[in-house]
Amino acid sequence: MPSMMHLNLFIHGRGHHEGAWRHPKAARLPLTDIGYYRGLAATAEAGLFDSLFLADALTLGQFDEVGSSPKGGLEPLTLLAALAGTTSRIGLIATASTTYTEPYNLARQFASIDHISGGRAGWNIVTSWAPGAEKQFGHDRQPTHEDRYARAEEFVRVVLGLWDGWSEDAIIDDPRSGRFADPAGIRPTNHVGQHYRVAGPLNVPRSPQGRPVLVQAGSSDTGRRFAARYAEAVFTAHLEKATAVEFYRDLKALVAEEGREPAQVLVLPGLSAAIGSTEAEARQLEEELNALTDPEVGRARLSGRFGGHDFSHLPLDRTLSVEDFPAPKTVQAARSRTEIITGMVARERPTLRQLLQRLAGARGHFCMAGTPEQVADIMEDWFRCGAADGFNIMPPVLPAMLDVLVEQVVPILQRRGLFRREYGAVTLRGQYGLPRLTGGEVRRAAE
Amino acid sequence: MPSMMHLNLFIHGRGHHEGAWRHPKAARLPLTDIGYYRGLAATAEAGLFDSLFLADALTLGQFDEVGSSPKGGLEPLTLLAALAGTTSRIGLIATASTTYTEPYNLARQFASIDHISGGRAGWNIVTSWAPGAEKQFGHDRQPTHEDRYARAEEFVRVVLGLWDGWSEDAIIDDPRSGRFADPAGIRPTNHVGQHYRVAGPLNVPRSPQGRPVLVQAGSSDTGRRFAARYAEAVFTAHLEKATAVEFYRDLKALVAEEGREPAQVLVLPGLSAAIGSTEAEARQLEEELNALTDPEVGRARLSGRFGGHDFSHLPLDRTLSVEDFPAPKTVQAARSRTEIITGMVARERPTLRQLLQRLAGARGHFCMAGTPEQVADIMEDWFRCGAADGFNIMPPVLPAMLDVLVEQVVPILQRRGLFRREYGAVTLRGQYGLPRLTGGEVRRAAE
Repeated sequence: MPSMMHLNLFIHGRGHHEGAWRHPKAARLPLTDIGYYRGLAATAEAGLFDSLFLADALTLGQFDEVGSSPKGGLEPLTLLAALAGTTSRIGLIATASTTYTEPYNLARQFASIDHISGGRAGWNIVTSWAPGAEKQFGHDRQPTHEDRYARAEEFVRVVLGLWDGWSEDAIIDDPRSGRFADPAGIRPTNHVGQHYRVAGPLNVPRSPQGRPVLVQAGSSDTGRRFAARYAEAVFTAHLEKATAVEFYRDLKALVAEEGREPAQVLVLPGLSAAIGSTEAEARQLEEELNALTDPEVGRARLSGRFGGHDFSHLPLDRTLSVEDFPAPKTVQAARSRTEIITGMVARERPTLRQLLQRLAGARGHFCMAGTPEQVADIMEDWFRCGAADGFNIMPPVLPAMLDVLVEQVVPILQRRGLFRREYGAVTLRGQYGLPRLTGGEVRRAAE
Repeated sequence: MPSMMHLNLFIHGRGHHEGAWRHPKAARLPLTDIGYYRGLAATAEAGLFDSLFLADALTLGQFDEVGSSPKGGLEPLTLLAALAGTTSRIGLIATASTTYTEPYNLARQFASIDHISGGRAGWNIVTSWAPGAEKQFGHDRQPTHEDRYARAEEFVRVVLGLWDGWSEDAIIDDPRSGRFADPAGIRPTNHVGQHYRVAGPLNVPRSPQGRPVLVQAGSSDTGRRFAARYAEAVFTAHLEKATAVEFYRDLKALVAEEGREPAQVLVLPGLSAAIGSTEAEARQLEEELNALTDPEVGRARLSGRFGGHDFSHLPLDRTLSVEDFPAPKTVQAARSRTEIITGMVARERPTLRQLLQRLAGARGHFCMAGTPEQVADIMEDWFRCGAADGFNIMPPVLPAMLDVLVEQVVPILQRRGLFRREYGAVTLRGQYGLPRLTGGEVRRAAE
């Protein structure tokens, strides 16, 4: 457990609640308006957050006549580069898939953003499971869960090799002698693997962080092992503290098994807090948001989560059982999230309507409604109980619930000595308390 | 010929002259420092330039112990996105290759930059010929010139289809009815071609320009035909006015043949001007720059231009003939540039040393040295003679020769009524005098 919490802002539409975009407290700017994101980044930076984070979906999915919800927006890497210019201290993390892009291109863009931001870049490594993504890239079917992870692992090794190919002192840039670079400090990658062959070296000199911070969010067995091997921060979804504690312990143990220092992998569960000056006011907001959701939108999203499984026959108000869901092992989608859902169904036996409302809050992440004190209490409790090194803050409505969290919850955490009062470090590695990596110091996790 | 010139700033290292990086008038900031690019963009915008442009190379190439020159830097798309935030009117054009990336990913990033910049994005479409690029992407050999262009053509059609898939009014975003989008306004691409299969629709809503501006720089026969079909601005290299006039006429005729309006394809030849308060001062700068070049660096670069052809046996001070070069048809590299070089050799019969110095100026683009009046005279002459709709400004030393051009040449052009006195339009299409494209108006050039 670090001495203080780490906070990441997860930006998602007009808020994480499925009904947020329709709520009067949500922004009205188009979701393609850079001003909207600049505003959120500025607020998070004013709140001394470690980082902000952008998710991604490689395909648009279906818009239905009835109950369509926001889809489509800005591409994360270009958005991140744009935000680098209007912020100065907050870390900038974007999701990028290993499934349908070239490692050389991705290594290059992240290294470039790390330069542009002065060492504040982070990469959330994902594999693409969304049904339909394969059709944007000339494939007839999605790769299996196992294939995706095998490819991801090799992809990450290539990217690390490309980043590590440049020594810190490779660039001499001496106008007098006419020597620009020391060839000995720029090594080829010479990767020849099962999925990729990449010669290197990268065409971007070593970036301020050496390696942008690696973030991961898969919580399946394969995903945890992957995180233990490579991740420096892990975003994770839990509907209750108990599973979060279990996940935290398990992941840190796996990190140690991999020969890494457990403290150098931050575990950041999602937290979606409806905040009011009274608990009743917070609950009312939550109810307003639930009233703005459409169960058919939720049903379609649930189907997407389960790899396109058909839930159309299920009545909304009958109690569910795990038999209503496909077995987790057969789902070629984001398996950790499907396990959270079926686990909750087994435990709580909700109706489909109840399940969909629960997921509408923040798609399987922990949701709560309360006063600033109550939110701080929960955060302190999870932090002290070993459920979290900090939080992936997922405001149900943006910017309103971010504003109030920064203005009212952060000061409470600061008074309790749980959160920084000013920025210390310059880089994201510094904010996260991770070591700076120079070419020579890098331990190749893959070896 | 438009009523006024269009000016584009081509940013390249510390200037386009091969010796620029060592010259005392060049910037000393690292070439990975975003502040350097922000400064150049601000100067070009103060000078009311239509646009700025970033070239690209997909592979680093060799650093030699002796005579290494700057290589490696920021990735163009992320750099462009970053510059969008510190500029407000200037167009932002980045090079991106069609050879080793996915059209869906590229369409997405350019659409995103078009949103972020408020409609100022442009894409310089290239195919990758640099020896070694293929080894970063798992290939054993480069595709041939013909293959690269066939692939590029299909790639562009896919990208246009993805951009055009969204109607202007597809997003409803009505919180009351709960309708976010009109599915009828978002059409799939359903592209099934020889090289690509892309279902669409794109996951980015229609951007302010509809289509970011398409730029092209290939001047080979295939390249010209490609430009005539798709380009809206063409960057072109000429060592003298005569070939520029010929190219201009030929390209505009080809554009008409393709059924397009010749005025809606701007021809912008490169211009690299060493500017001094006297001609002698300008010539002295040119000599200082030449003295900072190394013929062996030039020899290696020449070899790269000719697809890796070995020129190591050629003495520096013997008169060259075209027999010293491989036949243009056998070169699988950027063929138009090799033709310019062999044409110049046939015409002028330089020694290798003289050729290399000539190319060191701006790699085959027109170079001159003179006073601000003399530079303005040349620009006016080319513009009035039908050699140019404007210029791709390639300062030999940055920022010094950009500063003096903006401060001293631009005002002369303005007094002569040849250049704008204030920005009129908001988008790059507007600056270039090109039509705004809505989904319905788009004529599919490929049909």
